[in-house]
Amino acid sequence: MDFSDPLPSTTSEDEGRASSRVALLPVGSLEQHGPHLPLTTDTIVASALAQSLADANPGLRLLPPITFGCSHEHASWPGTVSVSAPTLHAMVSDVADSLRAAGTPKLVVVNGHGGNHVLANLVQASGGDMALFPGPNDWEAARKSAGMRTTNDRDMHAGELETSVLLHARPDLVRTGYQEADHLADRRDLMLTTGLARYTRSGVVGQPSRATAVKGRDLLSALVKGFSAYLAVLDPK
Amino acid sequence: MDFSDPLPSTTSEDEGRASSRVALLPVGSLEQHGPHLPLTTDTIVASALAQSLADANPGLRLLPPITFGCSHEHASWPGTVSVSAPTLHAMVSDVADSLRAAGTPKLVVVNGHGGNHVLANLVQASGGDMALFPGPNDWEAARKSAGMRTTNDRDMHAGELETSVLLHARPDLVRTGYQEADHLADRRDLMLTTGLARYTRSGVVGQPSRATAVKGRDLLSALVKGFSAYLAVLDPK
Amino acid sequence: MDFSDPLPSTTSEDEGRASSRVALLPVGSLEQHGPHLPLTTDTIVASALAQSLADANPGLRLLPPITFGCSHEHASWPGTVSVSAPTLHAMVSDVADSLRAAGTPKLVVVNGHGGNHVLANLVQASGGDMALFPGPNDWEAARKSAGMRTTNDRDMHAGELETSVLLHARPDLVRTGYQEADHLADRRDLMLTTGLARYTRSGVVGQPSRATAVKGRDLLSALVKGFSAYLAVLDPK
Amino acid sequence: MDFSDPLPSTTSEDEGRASSRVALLPVGSLEQHGPHLPLTTDTIVASALAQSLADANPGLRLLPPITFGCSHEHASWPGTVSVSAPTLHAMVSDVADSLRAAGTPKLVVVNGHGGNHVLANLVQASGGDMALFPGPNDWEAARKSAGMRTTNDRDMHAGELETSVLLHARPDLVRTGYQEADHLADRRDLMLTTGLARYTRSGVVGQPSRATAVKGRDLLSALVKGFSAYLAVLDPK
Amino acid sequence: MDFSDPLPSTTSEDEGRASSRVALLPVGSLEQHGPHLPLTTDTIVASALAQSLADANPGLRLLPPITFGCSHEHASWPGTVSVSAPTLHAMVSDVADSLRAAGTPKLVVVNGHGGNHVLANLVQASGGDMALFPGPNDWEAARKSAGMRTTNDRDMHAGELETSVLLHARPDLVRTGYQEADHLADRRDLMLTTGLARYTRSGVVGQPSRATAVKGRDLLSALVKGFSAYLAVLDPK
Amino acid sequence: MDFSDPLPSTTSEDEGRASSRVALLPVGSLEQHGPHLPLTTDTIVASALAQSLADANPGLRLLPPITFGCSHEHASWPGTVSVSAPTLHAMVSDVADSLRAAGTPKLVVVNGHGGNHVLANLVQASGGDMALFPGPNDWEAARKSAGMRTTNDRDMHAGELETSVLLHARPDLVRTGYQEADHLADRRDLMLTTGLARYTRSGVVGQPSRATAVKGRDLLSALVKGFSAYLAVLDPK
Repeated sequence: MDFSDPLPSTTSEDEGRASSRVALLPVGSLEQHGPHLPLTTDTIVASALAQSLADANPGLRLLPPITFGCSHEHASWPGTVSVSAPTLHAMVSDVADSLRAAGTPKLVVVNGHGGNHVLANLVQASGGDMALFPGPNDWEAARKSAGMRTTNDRDMHAGELETSVLLHARPDLVRTGYQEADHLADRRDLMLTTGLARYTRSGVVGQPSRATAVKGRDLLSALVKGFSAYLAVLDPK
Repeated sequence: MDFSDPLPSTTSEDEGRASSRVALLPVGSLEQHGPHLPLTTDTIVASALAQSLADANPGLRLLPPITFGCSHEHASWPGTVSVSAPTLHAMVSDVADSLRAAGTPKLVVVNGHGGNHVLANLVQASGGDMALFPGPNDWEAARKSAGMRTTNDRDMHAGELETSVLLHARPDLVRTGYQEADHLADRRDLMLTTGLARYTRSGVVGQPSRATAVKGRDLLSALVKGFSAYLAVLDPK
Repeated sequence: MDFSDPLPSTTSEDEGRASSRVALLPVGSLEQHGPHLPLTTDTIVASALAQSLADANPGLRLLPPITFGCSHEHASWPGTVSVSAPTLHAMVSDVADSLRAAGTPKLVVVNGHGGNHVLANLVQASGGDMALFPGPNDWEAARKSAGMRTTNDRDMHAGELETSVLLHARPDLVRTGYQEADHLADRRDLMLTTGLARYTRSGVVGQPSRATAVKGRDLLSALVKGFSAYLAVLDPK
Repeated sequence: MDFSDPLPSTTSEDEGRASSRVALLPVGSLEQHGPHLPLTTDTIVASALAQSLADANPGLRLLPPITFGCSHEHASWPGTVSVSAPTLHAMVSDVADSLRAAGTPKLVVVNGHGGNHVLANLVQASGGDMALFPGPNDWEAARKSAGMRTTNDRDMHAGELETSVLLHARPDLVRTGYQEADHLADRRDLMLTTGLARYTRSGVVGQPSRATAVKGRDLLSALVKGFSAYLAVLDPK
Repeated sequence: MDFSDPLPSTTSEDEGRASSRVALLPVGSLEQHGPHLPLTTDTIVASALAQSLADANPGLRLLPPITFGCSHEHASWPGTVSVSAPTLHAMVSDVADSLRAAGTPKLVVVNGHGGNHVLANLVQASGGDMALFPGPNDWEAARKSAGMRTTNDRDMHAGELETSVLLHARPDLVRTGYQEADHLADRRDLMLTTGLARYTRSGVVGQPSRATAVKGRDLLSALVKGFSAYLAVLDPK
Repeated sequence: MDFSDPLPSTTSEDEGRASSRVALLPVGSLEQHGPHLPLTTDTIVASALAQSLADANPGLRLLPPITFGCSHEHASWPGTVSVSAPTLHAMVSDVADSLRAAGTPKLVVVNGHGGNHVLANLVQASGGDMALFPGPNDWEAARKSAGMRTTNDRDMHAGELETSVLLHARPDLVRTGYQEADHLADRRDLMLTTGLARYTRSGVVGQPSRATAVKGRDLLSALVKGFSAYLAVLDPK
């Protein structure tokens, strides 16, 4: 038996940050990530990034992750579990309301899964009280900064980016074989209708062979830098 | 008084298409579109495109539009009205259920407003029974085909694309002055948090000065061509 | 291709009425209206009436229509599409909330479909901030004023009243043959259970043969007069 | 202390009717009924009628009443309590679903409060599995049959009809003074907006002075007869 | 025909308590209670107790009962009808909101059915504005005070406690044979999964043979005493 | 920076259990646990127990935890965050539906927070497809088996049981000082109304001084044994 890490070893709220003005909520998913990454990849990416943001910004409170999202486009692979968009909306909305009532008016939704589209609507309707991070430009800029040459669109799922973050944050969860798992499928216009299975048999769309732990580390660092613009707007001094 | 056009003069369902296997549902918004375009621009674009798709595909049923969407990013300009994401989800979901019970199992959501993010989740969860059209690549390809040199990202709101479609479909609703209304704001990463007002005073992000009715017509034609791939997948022969 | 009228050519909000204290929201339906009227008849009636109200009351803002309602009693005819009562409730309620937040505290729901019963509950619970127009007495009085001798109860669906309004507002959508389409069925007590099909094969209950465009015009004028009592109560000077 | 009648002394389900194909669900309200009738009047009327229907139709199961409805138009008098229309919809819908799963596919909603409009939508959408009883014509016919000369419209609240039923079914709950409580207010078009208080100070609209227990008894008997047409359609032999 | 008691003969709101600061809402269920007690037993117990509380506390308003609850664990016996937990939550929540708007800020949920678990969540989230009565300790203490030697756990359903209250409050509804209906099943850990049918064929878990009307009366009296601590906290002087 | 354990290092679904007939869903909370335990204590307890159950039953799939619950009774301490009961209901219900569609019909909700009452309703309504584990008797039996002499009622929050499990599963998260943190408050009848703050200043109700890692280990082992009866009923061979 091994209970060594059922959750983040330290969440910032136990360190006196419960009265922060801004909280960080990682939102992930439970969905296939090819033969080499775990189903929890998106949650791990979101949690690792949120931890980095909390480390760099001592005034921010780190919350535990929401571990299920909207992953219906991966439903044809075993292991994927989804909740509906209204349910995810209710969950994040309730967390924000509870925080607000307790004195934390601002919430950053740190999203690890592109399919959680409804989060954009929730943040958009918050009247300036929420941010959704990272945005597409933040990911692209951080890729470059970390020495990746792949793009969001081509390296979209279980590719260089996600594998690099896992190699950095949870190398024990990356299975061997990722070096030979590259698969590309540039135009995936029908994905919402057909699911991703039309475009990949393995579940990979991207180039995991290019992944390194260093790139994962540098990507997170670059995102931390990019985050400062969000924070300045969300909670101006 | 002028009641001449409270709704599409002919909806295809009155022409014997009520038993179609596939229906087209335009979804728009009611939001500011700069000094030169009407609040209903997105609904008009979605309706005109859906009409074109119905004209080109006699087997498809055209539905009247949903005229309110999620436009909270435009809330700081007068005139904008929004519904919540769960409400829009319920509305489209109910329409799809009603159609299915009546013998029309497939629904194309023809979306005219990029801020209606939750529609992607609804379609994604439909198990192959819905499509969301156009996707970003479809818009980009149609721009090129229509001789536009602007892109989705730079010409994002009330610009060359939308003004061209309106000049083609409803020139009576385009106000003078659009030739001098250009405004660019490329990186709008904080828009979900701050609203679009951070990036434009007039409400325009794009180049309406480049708009022509011919481009509008050609854009719709190009989208009609691009749609065939969706239809082939949604309702294979 | 003909995109000439996907929506009202001019909605009042583009004419500087976005800051009105009172807005007009037409609510219709998509349901069979016999062999001679379009599925969108109720939406057209509601929109034409709302347009008349806006024309006569320059301080009121006209909104685009909600085009789907609760038409389950017409489900046995092809073409009918319905949403559930809670969904229609959410849609109108969200519109009212959004308007209120933007400085328009009062909403008139201009209802074109008698089956949208839940609207009465929404208005009833608004604490004086909403009106539902026209009420049954308003329709009866306007019939008389327009020279109709039919009543709400006998001329209930696709009859003299609705055909007259369409002949006035959208004559291009009225099909020939309405002169021979009369059908009467006075007691329809079981309609909620059985649907309307128990009482009419054609979908008509009423006397479209009596319809004229002049009656349609005069009916709208009479309703405009009757509306002043609602407005005085909803938004007293 | 007096616990003598917290609920119907005999509900038919305890007499072997749990396996009925049809159930009767009284739905009432908790709202002011003038100086002489209790807040629970609508629930008592619905329950007494449902009991009569069950007595006359041994195959039908009688359910206990839903005791709160949509009474916002009475909110300005003390004592009135309301639930929202979506909540009442959910309550009745859940009861119907539970019965269906247990082998009782058909439900008659016996409505005692005209303001519960949403019940019409629920029944309308049931596809023939529900009835809403009595309809307006049933009430009018039963008034005549019981020797009343008032009508639904004029004798609308706490008047001859309701007082007669209470004098018959629960005379202990009728307070003295009803003979002098008449109040008429024929046109109440603005009631949904303003509430009933615009039209009556006492809460009465009608002629309670005409009420007698015999009329109440005869009214119920007449309704029982009128119900047979509903039953024949809801559950044909 | 017998309409003698469709509802409590006197609800306190008709006696001038409509402006109370605290209201009492009985919540019951419709579920099997063995061969000797009616399906409405839980509603009768809750209503009788609430009546006793109102009698002893003249400042409190008594509401009519909610007559359906969450009784899925009894679904295998005929007669049981349930609503979902979110629906029961909405019903009670709406009643509380309506009372608050009318000047009654505090609500005591008087619960007669242990399976209505969601009520605990609703009260827990009320921020001090609701109480759930009786709690398990209150029942245990009242049993002792009334001379019962059974416990909540062993005498759990249709046993000494419930039969005693019915013999006191509604002896006309207790069927003969309860003296021989005892059945014990102490550990029922799997009940939520399997329903109660795994543990009892008759539907009884407890010792109805020990029931007397006097015990029922004394139990209610003891609960009335125990209630004073709740009231002192809910609405301090 | 330390990303070493944002989630369980190994979830069983990555080991070929995605096609299990039974899944395990830990549900926790984010709430104060006195001066010595983390806010995530309930999630850690539920996750550690679920991991033990998965280890002992190789056919079962382990899911990541739901990390927010209904903790309103702890709202007066900083750090607590809650979601509403309907939202938690929706979240677990959606997970169950998604699993069922993917071929896993049975779900065990492994609950770490007693305040998540609504889970009992969800399981109760599942018709045999869900279990809620552990029940109160399971906890009591496991306490004894692990050598604890405290009971569920006295050692209710952040006491011997929870501290022991944390000392076993995540000793790095237990702060010093728990040996002096005992606090007892036996009767807490008013907790739902007042919150737990009425009964404890530190947030502890129980005897953490008695906690040891060995007791934590033995408690989990005892629960694993007790679980076999649930599994036999939920998924009989």
